[in-house]
Amino acid sequence: MDTNGTTEPGLKENRTSVNGTHCGFKVLVGTLVHSTREDPMVILTDKALGVLHSKIKFVAEADQLEELQTQYGFPDSAVTRLSNRQFVMPGLIDTHIHASQFPNNGLKMDLPLLEWLQKYTFPTEATFADVKFASHVYPRVVDRTLRNGTTTASYFATAHLEATKILANAVATRGQRALVGKVNMLHNCPPNYREDSVEQSIQETEQFITYVNNMKNPLVSAIVTPRFAPTCTDDQLTELGQLAAQHSTHIQTHMSETRPEVAWVKELFPHRTNYCDVYHQAGLLTRKTILAHCIWLSEEELELMSRMEVGVSHCPSSNLNLISGLCDVRKLLHHGIKVSLGTDCSGGNSASILDSLRRALHVSRCLTIHDSDQHPDPLTLREAFRLATLGGAQVVDMEDRIGNLEVGKEFDALVIDTQATGSPLDIFDKDKEPDLVEKFLYNGDDRNIVQVFVAGRCVVQNSE
Amino acid sequence: MDTNGTTEPGLKENRTSVNGTHCGFKVLVGTLVHSTREDPMVILTDKALGVLHSKIKFVAEADQLEELQTQYGFPDSAVTRLSNRQFVMPGLIDTHIHASQFPNNGLKMDLPLLEWLQKYTFPTEATFADVKFASHVYPRVVDRTLRNGTTTASYFATAHLEATKILANAVATRGQRALVGKVNMLHNCPPNYREDSVEQSIQETEQFITYVNNMKNPLVSAIVTPRFAPTCTDDQLTELGQLAAQHSTHIQTHMSETRPEVAWVKELFPHRTNYCDVYHQAGLLTRKTILAHCIWLSEEELELMSRMEVGVSHCPSSNLNLISGLCDVRKLLHHGIKVSLGTDCSGGNSASILDSLRRALHVSRCLTIHDSDQHPDPLTLREAFRLATLGGAQVVDMEDRIGNLEVGKEFDALVIDTQATGSPLDIFDKDKEPDLVEKFLYNGDDRNIVQVFVAGRCVVQNSE
Ligand SMILES: [Zn+2]
Ligand SMILES: [Zn+2]
Repeated sequence: MDTNGTTEPGLKENRTSVNGTHCGFKVLVGTLVHSTREDPMVILTDKALGVLHSKIKFVAEADQLEELQTQYGFPDSAVTRLSNRQFVMPGLIDTHIHASQFPNNGLKMDLPLLEWLQKYTFPTEATFADVKFASHVYPRVVDRTLRNGTTTASYFATAHLEATKILANAVATRGQRALVGKVNMLHNCPPNYREDSVEQSIQETEQFITYVNNMKNPLVSAIVTPRFAPTCTDDQLTELGQLAAQHSTHIQTHMSETRPEVAWVKELFPHRTNYCDVYHQAGLLTRKTILAHCIWLSEEELELMSRMEVGVSHCPSSNLNLISGLCDVRKLLHHGIKVSLGTDCSGGNSASILDSLRRALHVSRCLTIHDSDQHPDPLTLREAFRLATLGGAQVVDMEDRIGNLEVGKEFDALVIDTQATGSPLDIFDKDKEPDLVEKFLYNGDDRNIVQVFVAGRCVVQNSE
Repeated sequence: MDTNGTTEPGLKENRTSVNGTHCGFKVLVGTLVHSTREDPMVILTDKALGVLHSKIKFVAEADQLEELQTQYGFPDSAVTRLSNRQFVMPGLIDTHIHASQFPNNGLKMDLPLLEWLQKYTFPTEATFADVKFASHVYPRVVDRTLRNGTTTASYFATAHLEATKILANAVATRGQRALVGKVNMLHNCPPNYREDSVEQSIQETEQFITYVNNMKNPLVSAIVTPRFAPTCTDDQLTELGQLAAQHSTHIQTHMSETRPEVAWVKELFPHRTNYCDVYHQAGLLTRKTILAHCIWLSEEELELMSRMEVGVSHCPSSNLNLISGLCDVRKLLHHGIKVSLGTDCSGGNSASILDSLRRALHVSRCLTIHDSDQHPDPLTLREAFRLATLGGAQVVDMEDRIGNLEVGKEFDALVIDTQATGSPLDIFDKDKEPDLVEKFLYNGDDRNIVQVFVAGRCVVQNSE
């Protein structure tokens, strides 16, 4: 297995088994699995999916392949036939991940949020003042998430401008689709790790936005990233809201992760109706806003979120690890709020959205265990699959471009082999396509993700 | 990676990197991690651990190696030095796994227990009437669990005598330590899948015990296995209790997994005080009894379990998947009850005790989320590690022989390499021994388990 970062794109393309050809077409023949707005999981067998440059050009019956070949003029060498133990699915979308906390991935989850931040997380993030450390860590984060099938990620870096540029470069080099945020934090954090002033905060954030815009990489954007209300002042939040509006950027932050945090925000912002209103008054709630966690919400906040069309990043592993609470995803969905999944590495112990998908089911089932009258319909596996793919696309406001395998969308996709070398899955003769998908979603890992495509380009190839 | 089953033991030993030598000694030098009764996780660095035949002969400081070599006369070739990214830990113990449900591993967890049994589980188990199917499935279960680091397993097979013998053989051939049970079930199950009479049930169970005894494999024993109270009659349970006493076998069954099941048992056994009393009156509660689940217990039952010294197999994945409930492990431990972990494949989706360990933490944290006054001290990672190792040894009543790395115990152990080829872990320079252990326990998988030893014999060797 290797990723694209260290080799020339041209070289890499030649090493993929679904090579681009002179005509630019790639055609995959086999089973496709994806979500639509109407159906959380659609399994399409015997299909031919054609990719031209970055986009899905056609999805047709496999037995029409000859006609398609005539129509589009692609050679036989452009066609890859999947085995009946393989399938294609959309890439996974991680709408909340702290790239800077990656060294602590799988470590130190023995404290509640606010203490955990002070003792483990702020000190780790502070070390990114050293750009060498950033250059060591950030490429590894992107390699790992790509290998785990994350084709789109929304990253928190740190408060450091230079280190955050390194993350943007690491993402661009490796061909991942990403939103990258320099973190804004002014107070209630250690003296050696915070911004100096609102002016500096806004200025550096704008510098970062300009830097990313100048990269002219269609896959990478800057995202305005106030850490969370307690580390920001009202002025700062308002100016960040204006900055996001001026540059039409995305916005990400945390909200209502734990009860002590909610109480603290109430103290810090007594003039606001509630936590959500703090962000709303600052102009930070837009349809390009990603709010992580959103566990302890009032009905008023739910309605405000729905009205402003913000999206939620549900981070179940983190919420379980830090004993933060159980997010009621069903309720969010009932309010018409967009919901996606985040790993929240390193509050979440895993940098794989497959882990988040599994934990989302457990969180939902725990709510039902606790009160089956209030929570009669826990999330299904099919719904969790949608959260991990199409839900993510909605939350990053890119549903027009990514999230499933519809014609016209960019080809952000995974080729799954349930019988890959060293596979953790045990497949039996009786297993049909839905069983393969289910076994992969419950027990599969990066070994089963044999190819990862972003915008039509193969960025991970698990060599045989 | 391969397991020992298909090659001659002698050939296999030669392929391990810690070869037995003519003198029979193996010596591992490096970090050891295990549990004791006093401390749930002890990390010993720079140690030399010597294995003679099946047992741990010495644990000493690494710098005493020369003296040890003089004392015991083992050659240099008997010594393997681990890297500072590797460590040795006790083998994992799975005290509750349905080998016969393995084809459904990671499938079909959308129904509550009693409906799930009827719709998916009984029909799958019924297919083991065909011994060819058993011969196809059972070796794969053992290969998979060994590869996942399970050195001891307590297996449920099915009600079929012949198929259950095949499981015992598969275990013996591969060198796993195991308890193997022919399932007893007489009513409240499908007509095509149940025993015919109490007589047949007892007779075939005794035949199976005799069969296993005649194998004369010190690692494999028969275990008396009434499925659970609802599928058994009072007579049958009592005779099974007598059979277990006569042959000094272990006993395993299910208890108090879901609330509807508890209510049903109350209806079925109105003359018994409670669920636990059904087993008690049948003589099925001994210090060699493993009760799976034990979620919905009265104070009376807790006291009875403690008094009878039975052990609990906590199966958190299964309990979450089937929305059965959250087992309060802390309360069991407070009552002095032995607690271990079970995968409960296929109610649990994974056949890895590492998964159970992680889910045990989540279940415990969910109890705290729900009511932090009642559950102020959730399980720690260190405690979950003990449940997976020493706790398992206690529950299978083999604490004198296995469960940790103390001198005199049999060497059931794993060599963990946190930087194995294809490892899912990201290790940084800053990571010390406790970090390596924590990262492995949270995010490691079979790729990191580079060697598995049972009774001193290397049964899995992940080739480089
Ligand atoms: Zn976060
Ligand atoms: Zn079971």
